[in-house]
Amino acid sequence: MNEPRTTQGAAIIQALRQQLTSQALTGGSKLPAERELADLFDTTRITVKEALHHLEAEGLIYREERRGWFVSRPRLVYNPASRSHFHALVAAQQRVAATRVLSCESVLAPAELVSEMALAPLSRLTRICRLRSIDRRPVLYTEHYLIPEYFPDIGEQDLGQSLTGLYQRRYGLRYGRSRFDICPTAARGEAARSLSLAEGSPVLAITRINYDQQGRIIDCDREIWRHDAVRIRIDSQARAAAS
Amino acid sequence: MNEPRTTQGAAIIQALRQQLTSQALTGGSKLPAERELADLFDTTRITVKEALHHLEAEGLIYREERRGWFVSRPRLVYNPASRSHFHALVAAQQRVAATRVLSCESVLAPAELVSEMALAPLSRLTRICRLRSIDRRPVLYTEHYLIPEYFPDIGEQDLGQSLTGLYQRRYGLRYGRSRFDICPTAARGEAARSLSLAEGSPVLAITRINYDQQGRIIDCDREIWRHDAVRIRIDSQARAAAS
Repeated sequence: MNEPRTTQGAAIIQALRQQLTSQALTGGSKLPAERELADLFDTTRITVKEALHHLEAEGLIYREERRGWFVSRPRLVYNPASRSHFHALVAAQQRVAATRVLSCESVLAPAELVSEMALAPLSRLTRICRLRSIDRRPVLYTEHYLIPEYFPDIGEQDLGQSLTGLYQRRYGLRYGRSRFDICPTAARGEAARSLSLAEGSPVLAITRINYDQQGRIIDCDREIWRHDAVRIRIDSQARAAAS
Repeated sequence: MNEPRTTQGAAIIQALRQQLTSQALTGGSKLPAERELADLFDTTRITVKEALHHLEAEGLIYREERRGWFVSRPRLVYNPASRSHFHALVAAQQRVAATRVLSCESVLAPAELVSEMALAPLSRLTRICRLRSIDRRPVLYTEHYLIPEYFPDIGEQDLGQSLTGLYQRRYGLRYGRSRFDICPTAARGEAARSLSLAEGSPVLAITRINYDQQGRIIDCDREIWRHDAVRIRIDSQARAAAS
């Protein structure tokens, strides 16, 4: 048995979801203030807040500090197996991309990358951290870990551009095979701060080990996506079924 | 500037995370009670609770109603592009799989599937709902939507087995190409209830449109995974880069 508040909350969620999915409320537009919604649905602000947090978890709306609730724009449709450039991919979906370079420095290889990238223990890697936005909203925090021997002077290059393009033009390195992991997890540290997310908010982490055209591992990139900003889409030919 | 409680919480998270990732605490084992942890870290239960919820969001621990907190077992490593059977895949990772059939019935095709599956409006589909467990923990809720013409009498078959196998043996249908979407979202309705998740908990949804060996769409399956139970891993050859 549901208590009245829960039933009312469910009705509000249902009503708002219909408006959102039927595009009566369009991406980027602002929702009425919580007080107005409470009046509109003849309920309390607590019930309205719960309903809004639920729709936020589904990725239909998002909150901006001190500005209120907004309708999410469509998720970026993305295939991590294709090497399309972020800016080209975003533009092809009629959106506006931007990249901000946060840092580029030499770091000790994180323990988990030593085995993943087949490194000698205590190796150093060049780490490039960037923040990427779609329609001026930061949605993707990325870290690239490069094998420094292959990329001399990379710190002096323009790192706001596509790294794939830079690798090819300046270093003659093209991506070949890649292995990637997609893992739902929680925002932490620098990624959380850059994306203006509370620590522990759900994010989608994509880690990719990249080989060059000769089959050498050249870098690893880690993407931390806002959970409501992306949809992975892969069209595959079937492979042999196991047993 | 952090307030003391936050700093203390961060230290507890850090200490527990080290124990968890170094396998000092092994998968399936029970954590000490919240009261004991508060004593151990010389802090309040509220701070301990916050730290535990943070580690739950990362997928390192989980809570069972009235039983307390447990260490998560390793995520199932899974490639949705390969057609391996769930039971074979789980067994290959030294885990124990189980499947429970929840329902099998004829339903009106959900609106979003009408276009995805290229159906006539108001078509009917056969929907099979199942709940899958690993090591006795329910981690995956699945819905298969089948084109009924291709699967007569399917309701009279044993649906606890691999549907891929059943399709092939009884109906001579083999999976060919498939298209799939991976989308972080929130648990709702029947999926939330079956997985014992609060409405709005983060889950990973995988939707797959499946073709047979002749290129006809034969079914669509939707998987709702607990966020801490799965890691998608794909090893791909590079495709042509976009512009």
